Amino acid sequence: MNNVIDFINTRRDRYLDELKALLAIPSISALPEHKGDVLRCAEWCANEMRRIGLENVRLFETPGHPVVYGDWLGAPGAPTILFYGHYDVQPVDPVDLWESPPFEATVRDGELYARGAADDKGQVFMHFKAIEAHMKQNGRLPVNMKLILEGEEEVGSANLDAFVRDHQSELAADVVVISDTGMFERGVPSITYGLRGLVYAQIDLRGTKSDLHSGSFGGAVANPAYVLAQILTQMKDRGGRIKIPGFYDDVRALREEEREAWKRLPFNEKKYKKDLGAPKLVGETGYSTLERTWARPTFEVNGLLSGFTGEGSKTVIPAVAMAKVSMRLVPDQDPDTIAKLFEEYVKKVAPRSVELKVTRMHGGKPWMTDFDNPYVQAAGRAIRTGFGQEPLFIREGGSIPVVATFQEILGLPSVLFGIGLPDENAHAPNEHLDLSNFYNGVLASAVLYQEIAGVTK
Amino acid sequence: MNNVIDFINTRRDRYLDELKALLAIPSISALPEHKGDVLRCAEWCANEMRRIGLENVRLFETPGHPVVYGDWLGAPGAPTILFYGHYDVQPVDPVDLWESPPFEATVRDGELYARGAADDKGQVFMHFKAIEAHMKQNGRLPVNMKLILEGEEEVGSANLDAFVRDHQSELAADVVVISDTGMFERGVPSITYGLRGLVYAQIDLRGTKSDLHSGSFGGAVANPAYVLAQILTQMKDRGGRIKIPGFYDDVRALREEEREAWKRLPFNEKKYKKDLGAPKLVGETGYSTLERTWARPTFEVNGLLSGFTGEGSKTVIPAVAMAKVSMRLVPDQDPDTIAKLFEEYVKKVAPRSVELKVTRMHGGKPWMTDFDNPYVQAAGRAIRTGFGQEPLFIREGGSIPVVATFQEILGLPSVLFGIGLPDENAHAPNEHLDLSNFYNGVLASAVLYQEIAGVTK
Repeated sequence: MNNVIDFINTRRDRYLDELKALLAIPSISALPEHKGDVLRCAEWCANEMRRIGLENVRLFETPGHPVVYGDWLGAPGAPTILFYGHYDVQPVDPVDLWESPPFEATVRDGELYARGAADDKGQVFMHFKAIEAHMKQNGRLPVNMKLILEGEEEVGSANLDAFVRDHQSELAADVVVISDTGMFERGVPSITYGLRGLVYAQIDLRGTKSDLHSGSFGGAVANPAYVLAQILTQMKDRGGRIKIPGFYDDVRALREEEREAWKRLPFNEKKYKKDLGAPKLVGETGYSTLERTWARPTFEVNGLLSGFTGEGSKTVIPAVAMAKVSMRLVPDQDPDTIAKLFEEYVKKVAPRSVELKVTRMHGGKPWMTDFDNPYVQAAGRAIRTGFGQEPLFIREGGSIPVVATFQEILGLPSVLFGIGLPDENAHAPNEHLDLSNFYNGVLASAVLYQEIAGVTK
Repeated sequence: MNNVIDFINTRRDRYLDELKALLAIPSISALPEHKGDVLRCAEWCANEMRRIGLENVRLFETPGHPVVYGDWLGAPGAPTILFYGHYDVQPVDPVDLWESPPFEATVRDGELYARGAADDKGQVFMHFKAIEAHMKQNGRLPVNMKLILEGEEEVGSANLDAFVRDHQSELAADVVVISDTGMFERGVPSITYGLRGLVYAQIDLRGTKSDLHSGSFGGAVANPAYVLAQILTQMKDRGGRIKIPGFYDDVRALREEEREAWKRLPFNEKKYKKDLGAPKLVGETGYSTLERTWARPTFEVNGLLSGFTGEGSKTVIPAVAMAKVSMRLVPDQDPDTIAKLFEEYVKKVAPRSVELKVTRMHGGKPWMTDFDNPYVQAAGRAIRTGFGQEPLFIREGGSIPVVATFQEILGLPSVLFGIGLPDENAHAPNEHLDLSNFYNGVLASAVLYQEIAGVTK
């Protein structure tokens, strides 16, 4: 392994330049006008995968954006890793809040600022470099490797389940490796053993056929913006508990040992609050901040739009009002069940004075694994070598629905081995990646393949 | 008068062409990028006023948009009319809902479609044509006339009070005439004897310093979009009564004779509902639709904006949320008092988990007059001649704050003599004006000056 590690340690500047090129492609999967950029990014990844020595590299068309595939299967008898990552990124608005352009990666104070730096291009690229190092120095990998890169993770992975189902035999492996999660905090590398699921929906209300003068008509008709506020407010009680009937039926309670372990984590609530710039931390009564974000479901409003929102004033009763909302789910909630309960509840609480439309956008299942799984333990050892530190075992509040897919369709465990930091603005302006975590992450990834090679299948 | 009436009746086509030129100027006072257009519109009006024979025509600068002034004072001993109108218009968004471009006036089925057609350019122009007819046929008006046209009515008339105060002697008159109101319905010309006032404000909330990933942070911090919904929902109780303490203290109760008179008005609630496209009419318990819109105060949300509002989904906890809200006031509520009560209440109900900013945008006092005032009676006779019908005496839900200003500063009664129709979309897409009302309105205006000439001062 030493020659691999030396190779990595002498190539840091070159890695940065290459990563900047990948981050320059605005592969925003949510926006139709970026469809060409998403494809360009898929092709960039495919070319890079060929260059570092992967074989059978190709793009699989889907009804949306393509999946990039590549493999190296020259280690018969050794375990096979199925690596999953995504090359699409979140939208960048409000773009005026970015301190440097989102698609011109810029280093400030050891951090690389760009959309996708942490989520997920930087972490995918970390594995490219780990693979490259093995291949260049030894002409081979210690394991068999299959890579798939998705272009629709940020819009709900609508076509990935079908892709995995249609290619079950090609994707056969022993373990899935995903680097799309975070470290507990700076200097504390972590293995994630639980994720939340997601249901995302849009509520549209119509009060009248067009906007009305609020003087002439104010008082006579329902105001859809006001009704929307009323509907949203009925989603949670004063204690922050979600009021949708049946919502908590399948929620797995936190184990007492988990709660105890989390209390011992180096979590500084005061700093957390200050870093976010929040006047106060608030949430469901009876749970700590970590419990609220890792192990309890949520209801959030992601967007609101109605009426006049420009500068100045316009005395209008809006004809329509819209909210984007989402719920994070925890084991063993099912997204389809929750989406149905949500829709029924909204229909029940919405008054008959407005027309209501509920559109389900996307969803994903929550997930949890045992942390005594041998692959998870192998990842722990890789982190110890790459970062020179004991890893923490944590859950994460975010959703990677594909983890549940791999478990269900391919029967594979996943190792969530991520180097993002919680304050790196994954879905916000000024997304960034700590470069020392990136360099350590390349080392740890290279070691991970070696450690997985030693696991008895 | 017959020669004046003949003059008007033979010039309908020419009137339409001239009015189209006025409506082509996008004098949107709310939008800074239209400042030049607002000035151009003021100059267009000044030129037209000179052309029809008014004197001393000029623009008075204000800190905002100019006031256009002109007079004709050649009838010593006769009453003096102070005519007030406005040449600015509302914004046009959402512009894609317009069936023809808002600044290319288009006739369809006897209706003239354009922003400003009814509110208020069409009604100002109606008086231009009535004055022109007297001047061309007789070389004089039967009364003295002072005209002022404001360029900031749609943004709250912030500078008009000061203008009126600074020019008290120049504006001295016997009665104010304003055509910026509506007829009760098609075929029912009306005199308005009451108006609602207004308080308009913006609520801004900040939860965190930037948008957050709703997975990583969902559950731990306040969501400002959700908190905004909670604040708004606390503005009214289930019966539609506003919950701001002290809000109703100065509300003048409806008189029993008024309620009885309104019950006899030709108001078709079913048609009203159908025209608006509202699934249901709803409002304050215990009041009819006319009572709710004419004589009861309201709280409305005029705009909402927060988080991601584009196509698709973005799993973000918004950093900020904004609502534009307004309250219509009735006699004897005072806008300053209500604005203060509102702000105190919002501050009281807003949780400490968000930063709150309340910005007062503009306001105006409610107004009512006696309908046995001799000038109001003169207007009634003018309508009888112009429209061949008895006028109705009604209130209006909208606000014309300047009416209260003229009463307070100049001690003048106002005659509200309007030809708009309730379904003409004054502040919405596809604003339009009924052309037969316009032509009858020119006749009625010409007769109005004659009738006012006969009032004993």
